[in-house]
Amino acid sequence: MEKKIELKKDIIYPCDVVKFVNFKLKLESGNSINNFQIKYKTYGKLNSEKSNAILICHALTADQFVGDPNPVTKKPGWWNHMVGPYKPIDTEKYFVICSNVIGGCMGSTGPKEINEENNLPYALNFPTVTIKDMVAAQKMLVDALGIKKLFSVIGASMGAMQVLQWVIDYPKSVNSVIHIAGALKHSTQNIAFHEVGRQAIMSDPNWNKGNYLEDQKPERGLAVARMIAHITYLSEKALYRKFGRKLQSRDIISFGFDADFQVESYLRYQGKTFVDRFDANSYLYMTRAMDYFDVTNILPKVMKFNSEDNNHIHYFIISFTSDWLFPTNENKEIIKILNKAGKKVSFTEIVTDKGHDSFLLDEPEFIDVVAGFLESNFKIIKGS
Amino acid sequence: MEKKIELKKDIIYPCDVVKFVNFKLKLESGNSINNFQIKYKTYGKLNSEKSNAILICHALTADQFVGDPNPVTKKPGWWNHMVGPYKPIDTEKYFVICSNVIGGCMGSTGPKEINEENNLPYALNFPTVTIKDMVAAQKMLVDALGIKKLFSVIGASMGAMQVLQWVIDYPKSVNSVIHIAGALKHSTQNIAFHEVGRQAIMSDPNWNKGNYLEDQKPERGLAVARMIAHITYLSEKALYRKFGRKLQSRDIISFGFDADFQVESYLRYQGKTFVDRFDANSYLYMTRAMDYFDVTNILPKVMKFNSEDNNHIHYFIISFTSDWLFPTNENKEIIKILNKAGKKVSFTEIVTDKGHDSFLLDEPEFIDVVAGFLESNFKIIKGS
Repeated sequence: MEKKIELKKDIIYPCDVVKFVNFKLKLESGNSINNFQIKYKTYGKLNSEKSNAILICHALTADQFVGDPNPVTKKPGWWNHMVGPYKPIDTEKYFVICSNVIGGCMGSTGPKEINEENNLPYALNFPTVTIKDMVAAQKMLVDALGIKKLFSVIGASMGAMQVLQWVIDYPKSVNSVIHIAGALKHSTQNIAFHEVGRQAIMSDPNWNKGNYLEDQKPERGLAVARMIAHITYLSEKALYRKFGRKLQSRDIISFGFDADFQVESYLRYQGKTFVDRFDANSYLYMTRAMDYFDVTNILPKVMKFNSEDNNHIHYFIISFTSDWLFPTNENKEIIKILNKAGKKVSFTEIVTDKGHDSFLLDEPEFIDVVAGFLESNFKIIKGS
Repeated sequence: MEKKIELKKDIIYPCDVVKFVNFKLKLESGNSINNFQIKYKTYGKLNSEKSNAILICHALTADQFVGDPNPVTKKPGWWNHMVGPYKPIDTEKYFVICSNVIGGCMGSTGPKEINEENNLPYALNFPTVTIKDMVAAQKMLVDALGIKKLFSVIGASMGAMQVLQWVIDYPKSVNSVIHIAGALKHSTQNIAFHEVGRQAIMSDPNWNKGNYLEDQKPERGLAVARMIAHITYLSEKALYRKFGRKLQSRDIISFGFDADFQVESYLRYQGKTFVDRFDANSYLYMTRAMDYFDVTNILPKVMKFNSEDNNHIHYFIISFTSDWLFPTNENKEIIKILNKAGKKVSFTEIVTDKGHDSFLLDEPEFIDVVAGFLESNFKIIKGS
């Protein structure tokens, strides 16, 4: 049977769906996924030349709701201050696409979704997906939307990994990229933190080798995993400035194990709210995809001097001074490779004490440089 | 009934015990412990002037077995290369005392021990102990051994907190101190990491509000807590140098959730072996004691210019460049206070990439400065 592309509106979440029927998505592991679907949001209008499309790749626990309220949390989109009319990523000008990655848990095919073969959730029967696989699925979505060349691909953290993968696998489909707070490979310490998070989930008896029930999820393990990760998203200084050793409502310490310090109740809250919106198995798959990411060898190979494939791309690398997950020096390793091959590279290091999460926050300089890069590159495209 | 001091040999572990019978140890919280006992080791001989005694204060998960094999793990003492005949802390010269802190789990009164009032383990009925309480108990042990003035008090990490507390509470009983990798107060980020560890333990259903059974301990939660902590004891560089992204026995990744990377199996091993030697409730109490530690206000008050109480003490502060739990700048805050009050202060920052755990490792410069400080100060004492 021939591959069939179904484009429809989602009935659960206010977003769009593309489903590839009679199709096997071949994965990097050698496994494949049958009839996969991608849930995605678009903002703004695709122009007649189809030259104004921006793909935003989300980070570990984000989703397609980049610029409007999240239907699960009811909170504003995760980049609400960045994406919208007259905002830095201006949807009056650009057509913005943001899709939930495969393996995610906001409707794209992943461990939480139903496996058509047995009508049960995939759980651990879902095959391991990599950053390369996520990008392959995104490319199919972009093709389905009839877009030959993306004006820009933007992503931070796990999103930045996807940006690099786009450049490696589909350079001709990309005009420019904004790579924020990423690296050539996931570092030893980052793998270590992810592994502890996974162990916290898999140690929760409710996890049940991935086959948990809807009303008996490994919430405690997942909350602990989130708490660990959350510390790494901030900086020591930001934590100190925000909480110091400030106590909860009491003036004096309780001499017990309740949350005495404000930082404790903050972390507990972060853990508690996370389990309402994220799937534990998906967390395992997403962290694993990041751990496996390593383009140290492939990037220099594809970045040849005078390569027709990727010479046209304008590369923008952004890092944050207080980011200890993806520090500036790791972002610079990418720049070295690009510069050596004579590519068009821009770089900004944002001075902030807010840590890795700076990309999600209202950091004026960061917002300015993203908007400026897009604007100047869009002028070039329109002029050509 | 009158307080009775019982000094005896321990029948379980090869160490000594002091028990204070008909006695209530008043704690900082206002609670008290009845008839508490301290298990301790001594090495070398107390000289006739009783002027050669060194008290070593152990860190979070260590114990009294500083210089000889640990009876539980069968491994060498935790500072085996530091303490012994002709070693840096030379037991041919010095009389070394190391006691398990109250609240610990190697035989001193703590949550694992039997509460005489109901013949059950204390568990969470054990009162919260602070660094001040630990030191008060140590002081009673030192008194019981007939020692009026310690030649030196040495400690790293939680041990360094005890060193500062000795200086604050019993300055006249101390000749010199070596404070290694500590701080005036436990930082926000350190509290945050401890809190996640505690949540991992308390989330384990086996924890059962502290009333776990001998054959059903919260081992998975405790292992996760240890894994988190272990990452913080090392440095990014040390982790990278040791493991990088090296894989386990296989040459290729498994595309699954087994320990693919060496750093993963290393962490799993650290977690697994820890639960065999440490009590989960004790871990809660010890981390809490560290979190509560804050002598920011009291230290400057007792460190007065020309104070007869503490002017005689020679203070030695040591930090490690790659220690991100107790960085050099936090150690220097102590030095500032001591210098302002005109005390005798020495300081060394050891250049190493091995992180907080450097104090446990064979770091030649570190070992040299500790040995040198003790030697020169001992000469002064013998000369006086």
